[in-house]
This record gives sequence, structure tokens and C-alpha cells, in this order.
Amino acid sequence: MIVEIVATGTELLLGEIINTNTPFLSQKLNELGFDVLYHSTVGDNRTRMTQVLDNALHRSDIIITSGGLGPTQGDITKEVTADLLNRPLFLHEDSVNKITCLFAKRKLPMTDSNLRQAMIPQGAIVIENQLGTAPGIILEHDNKIIIHLPGPPRELEGMFEHAVVPYLKSHFNSQGAIVSRILHTFGISESLLEEQIKEFILCQSNPTIALLARQGEIIVRLTAKGATDGEANNLIDQLEKQIRQKIADYIWGLDNDTIEAIIGEILTEKQLTVALAESCTGGLATSRITDISGSSAYLMGSIVCYTNKIKTDFIGVTPQIITEYGAVSQETARLMAAGIREKFATSIGIGITGIAGPTGATPTKPVGTVFIAIDGPAGIQCQHHTFNGQRTEIKYRISQAALHMLRQYTLSL
Amino acid sequence: MIVEIVATGTELLLGEIINTNTPFLSQKLNELGFDVLYHSTVGDNRTRMTQVLDNALHRSDIIITSGGLGPTQGDITKEVTADLLNRPLFLHEDSVNKITCLFAKRKLPMTDSNLRQAMIPQGAIVIENQLGTAPGIILEHDNKIIIHLPGPPRELEGMFEHAVVPYLKSHFNSQGAIVSRILHTFGISESLLEEQIKEFILCQSNPTIALLARQGEIIVRLTAKGATDGEANNLIDQLEKQIRQKIADYIWGLDNDTIEAIIGEILTEKQLTVALAESCTGGLATSRITDISGSSAYLMGSIVCYTNKIKTDFIGVTPQIITEYGAVSQETARLMAAGIREKFATSIGIGITGIAGPTGATPTKPVGTVFIAIDGPAGIQCQHHTFNGQRTEIKYRISQAALHMLRQYTLSL
Repeated sequence: MIVEIVATGTELLLGEIINTNTPFLSQKLNELGFDVLYHSTVGDNRTRMTQVLDNALHRSDIIITSGGLGPTQGDITKEVTADLLNRPLFLHEDSVNKITCLFAKRKLPMTDSNLRQAMIPQGAIVIENQLGTAPGIILEHDNKIIIHLPGPPRELEGMFEHAVVPYLKSHFNSQGAIVSRILHTFGISESLLEEQIKEFILCQSNPTIALLARQGEIIVRLTAKGATDGEANNLIDQLEKQIRQKIADYIWGLDNDTIEAIIGEILTEKQLTVALAESCTGGLATSRITDISGSSAYLMGSIVCYTNKIKTDFIGVTPQIITEYGAVSQETARLMAAGIREKFATSIGIGITGIAGPTGATPTKPVGTVFIAIDGPAGIQCQHHTFNGQRTEIKYRISQAALHMLRQYTLSL
Repeated sequence: MIVEIVATGTELLLGEIINTNTPFLSQKLNELGFDVLYHSTVGDNRTRMTQVLDNALHRSDIIITSGGLGPTQGDITKEVTADLLNRPLFLHEDSVNKITCLFAKRKLPMTDSNLRQAMIPQGAIVIENQLGTAPGIILEHDNKIIIHLPGPPRELEGMFEHAVVPYLKSHFNSQGAIVSRILHTFGISESLLEEQIKEFILCQSNPTIALLARQGEIIVRLTAKGATDGEANNLIDQLEKQIRQKIADYIWGLDNDTIEAIIGEILTEKQLTVALAESCTGGLATSRITDISGSSAYLMGSIVCYTNKIKTDFIGVTPQIITEYGAVSQETARLMAAGIREKFATSIGIGITGIAGPTGATPTKPVGTVFIAIDGPAGIQCQHHTFNGQRTEIKYRISQAALHMLRQYTLSL
């Protein structure tokens, strides 16, 4: 089944917004086993949109559009399809009621133009929009399927998951179930990871394995086909088990897990508290920990110590250590971790000191050099890394290393 | 001149990466006065890429592709064009030399496949790639122009600015010069901003004015056409002056300015230092200030005080104030600002306390409530805001408000 995704909207052609709908749909459809072979974008122009949709109908089996379902005169996607397929629009009563209710609930005045959103091509399946006023539409026509979804990403994503996936699964029943699982790894390069699990990558056709680089980590995506969800999940379970025998130490989460949330779960479960002394990361590691709601239960606070004086006066790093080893040194990092732990009376203290660049390098300590120390019930540990990249990338990678080190330290307690 | 942008690469169709090249090119080309009417994406497949390029040649005057210029068998963009236009590929000696030098410099072994990158269609203009091995190509053919650029965004952006813009400007000389300028605003809504400068938006056709919402701010883009760059710049200067008479207080920067960098310039120039006491933002405001190289000259440090005890013990907020007014209050924010200023002995202290959500709201203090206080040579100021959004959005908006408040406070000194 060949799929084409057509994004509509002049703002896309002007480059004013980044199109995230098309990659979202592409990834989900590929996971479902469909072949997405074309992406197109066209503006809110009747002639050109007609040509693009006509072209798509000739080369693809399933066409999914985003955008152009709003109440304004510029929203023409449904009109274009109705004309192209000769399926006149009529007022869909259920949608009228829903839109009327929504406006009443929000206490907003409704105009006739809002009712344009309730106009539906003859014979269409209407998809309810739980987050907005524009309903979606599925049209079956001459063995082709056209699906219209609204442009706002949250609305499109919700409707795709809740209505389009079940529709496609039931319509293409013969394909059976397709299930994907993501294994998040950290601390191993893409090439080493590939080397470690090469035997599975080479020998496996179901499930398939894909390695993908994401910001600061490599993910392994397993995708299995089966007669049922259960069968596909079983296949993935077996392969995951085999993969874990090779790279268990590097896998820290599944699917939508984030390292910030995983840390939160461990600290909460083990009733541990944490404080940080951050130099080169400038508060970024602490900020990431506080991205999780409820983090005030385990994150007590931090000191960003951008000067030696603050390291000395508020965290207890002795001037002698800084003079002898430097502010960027294992010794300083260790004292920062121990110092903040003691001052803030937490189970665990973290010290981060390094060179974010682009200036500040020395012959022995290049830009990207960092020392990360953790002090806690299991004693002090310290790691030394050298990261590449621009200043903000280096800051992010250091915070990433610190959060993963915190996970490993707390898991061992 | 109708422009079509064709992104190539199977990874795009799989949704594995977000396509930022197409919006970049679209924005730049629109600023140059070209009409970008179509975006297409196709995978590394000879038949389908041929069809997509052939279709583009029929409906568009200028076609710009990204991707598919690498050394592997999957990189086929040049071959497809060479076949389609009957312009055989030959080995381009200058490019061979450059690639050979680059490999020698990086001390990497070079294979025959690397030389595929030096194969150029007959009659093409070769664009040097200053950041990578793949040269770009400009082909003029039957009144159409085809431009091939590499996929890595930094390479594509660099080559577009350095080679494609001058080429297009000289080729379409009759169009004269087109210049754009961005005015960054903060603290005014899009609708109010539109209201304030409506007279210019309605009456102006050269320069044109566009209002665009960006993360946490609204930007005003002025675009002028003139016979020369100087003439276009003069037109923009005049309009900017008129616009500033209406909304000067809200404009804080131009073009590529960032608020973090602007603050750095002011603090450096006025020889001021700053420290922060952050509660709900968890270090984010400090981290953003330290995104600027050289920020250690003015940012001394911060305390993230996620507990009342840390607010009391390390910053000097009295328990009475917290009991009487609450940790999220104007009174607490003021004491945080004054306290951190005193403890860290800086010119300026900032205190931020609020509710990032989604939990923690009270009947009088909804999620998004924040108090931001600044203490310094001009006395204490405090702002009270209520922001909408998810937890991380609220954190960002609060940090944004704090940085803009810091700018205004320091400008007045």
C-alpha cells in the first residue's frame, strides 16, 4: 500500500513553521507496515491543490492530508476533494451539534463561518476531533482512500491515534498486527552498538531492527508483524531478551521513557534526595531534573558556582585544591559533590565542573572537558569525559552524562 | 518565478528526521522575492525521483533539491538529473583535488566511492562546499534552473548563502535587491501589536510587514525591494523608525539577536554582575544566561531553592514571611532577590518563585503563577505573571520574562 502525505498551508511554503505533522505520520505509518513514498506540500490555492491531490491519487493508494479544515475562506481542503471526486458537501448534523456545544461551553460567539467546519463530502466517514472544532474525514473512492486531518499537531496526532489507526487496521485486516518497541541506550556509540547486535540485525527480518541517533543517545527500534498484537509482542519480547543479553548495561528505558522521569522514579522509590553543584552546565542539569512534576520530593536544590569564590564560600571547595589541581579537575568535582551533599543535607550530591567553550581551553584540558562526581551512601565516584560540539551542545551532553551517572549510582543503592 | 523544493532521502519518508532544510530554503527564497509554491519529498529510488523531478520541471521554474550527493550507492540525485536532462556526468578535477586534500588533512583513507562526489553533469556550475566533501551544482536547462545542495543542514545553509543567493541575484538582475530585517518584540500580544502598527500593515506594499509568533515572542519582519541593497535598506530604515515610534518599548533586538546575548552585552558594558535565586524555574534562567560564551564575567552564580529550608538557610528568606505570605508570593520573591544579591555580593539579584504545575495550584494561585523580583542599584522591582502551558513551557516563559525584566532593569541603570 503506497501512502502519500500532503501537507497544506501557505505558511509552510513561506517557511514560517516547521512541518512536524508529516514526519509524525510517516513514522507511525511505517511502523504500521505502510510504504510512505511521497511527501508533498501545497498552499491554500484551489488550482494547485487540485493538481497535487490529483497527482497523488494517480501514484498512491492512501492519501493523508493535514491542514485546511478551519473556518476561514483560506481553508479549502474539503472543497477541493469534494470537487475532484464529485462528492458534494452537506451539513453534518452531529458535527454542527458538537461545534455549537463547544462554543457554548467556551462562552464564545459562533458565526456562520464556524459551520463551514461541519460541511462533509457525501459518503465520508467523520472523525471526531476531541481537542478542536474541525472534524476529520475518511473518504473511500475507487479503491483509494483519502484522509483529511486538521493542521494543529495535537489535534492531528490525537485523531490519527484514536481513529485513523483503528480504521487502517480494520480496513487492511489481512496485514495482521504490527507492533514497535523502542529501547533507549546510553554510553555506547552507534557503531559499537551495531557491532554488538550485528547477528540479530543481519539474521532478523521479523522483527526488524533499526538503530537511530537521537539527541545525546542511540535508540534501537524493534518492529514485529504478527497475526495479532499478542503474537507481534511475543516476537519483540524474545528479541529484546536476546538483545539485552548483549547490551543490557546500556539500555535505560523503553518507548516514551525520559531519563528525567526514570531518575524521578528511582529516587522516589528509594526515598533518596539529591542536590547539585553545577559549574559549566550553569543549572541545566538541575533544570532538567525539575522538568518532572513532583520533583520537589527528591530535588532539594542546587548551587550554580560560576566563580571560585562561590565554590569556596558556599560549597566548601578549599582554595588549595583549586590552586593545586584547578577548578576543572577531578579533585574539585569531588569536593563539589561532597560539599553540596553536606550543605543541603541530601542523600546524594553531584558536582559538575568543566569547559563549555569555545574559550577557556588549556593545553591539557580541551573544550568539552568535564569532571562529574557523585557522593552518596556508596561513596564518591567521578567520571571524566571530553565532549564535542557547540557550547550549548556540550552543556546538554554534560547534563545528559550527569543524569545517566545519577541513574546508575542510585540503581546500585 | 515559481520555485519547488525537493527534499530527497528515504530517512525523511520514514519520519526518522525532521526536515529543516525545506523551511530554511522557503523562508530565504520568499525573502528574496521568489514564489515557493511546492515542496516535495522522495526517497532514494531512481524511478520515483525521476518522476518527481520531471513533474517539478513541468510546473516550476527553479528546482532546488537537498540530499543525495554523498559517496554511497544510495546517493543518486546527480545521476537522476544527468539522465533526465541528458547531461552525462564527468569527473570534475577541481572537486577531485579538494576532496583529496580534505581526506589528507583529516588523515582518513579515501576510497573510489569518495570520487563519486566529484562527478558533475556536463555544463553545470559547481558550488564549493566549505564544510564537507560534496560539491553543489547549478544547472541551467531550457529556461529552467536546477540546483542540487547536500543534505546536512550546515552545509546546505552555508552553500545557499554563499553561492546560491549571489547566483540568483545576478541571474534575476531585473528584480533588484530584496532585504529583510527582523524586529524582536516582547511583552505585547500579537493582536495588540497588529493594532498598534495596523496603519503600516494596511498601507505598506514596499516594505511589506509580517507578524510571526515564535517561542515566547512575536517578531516583526520587514522586507523591502529596491534597485540596490542600499535603497532597500533605506526603505526599511524609514519604516523601522515609524514603527519604533509606536512600539519602541517592546522592541529588544534585531535579526539574529538573542535575549541572552543582549543581556550579556549590557551587563558587560555597564560592568554589572548578577546572581539568581530560582525556585520554580529550577535553574533554567541561569542556564540560559550561561549559554553565552564569556558569561562568567557577569554571572557569578545561583541557588536553586526547591525547599523552604534552603530559601531560609541559604538565601535569608525569613520563615515568618513564608508562613504569612506563602513561598509563592511577592514578599518571598523580593527577599530572594535581595538575599542572593547580598550573599553572592553581586550588583543585581533576581528571585523567581512560582507554580510550574500541573500540581501545586491553590484557589488564589493557579498553575503558571509567578513572582519575579530584581534587586539592584535602582531598588527592588517585582512582577506578577500567570502563564499558560505545559510544565516545561511555563518554565521557559517564566525564564523569558525574567531575562526581559533583567534587560529593562539594567538598561535603566
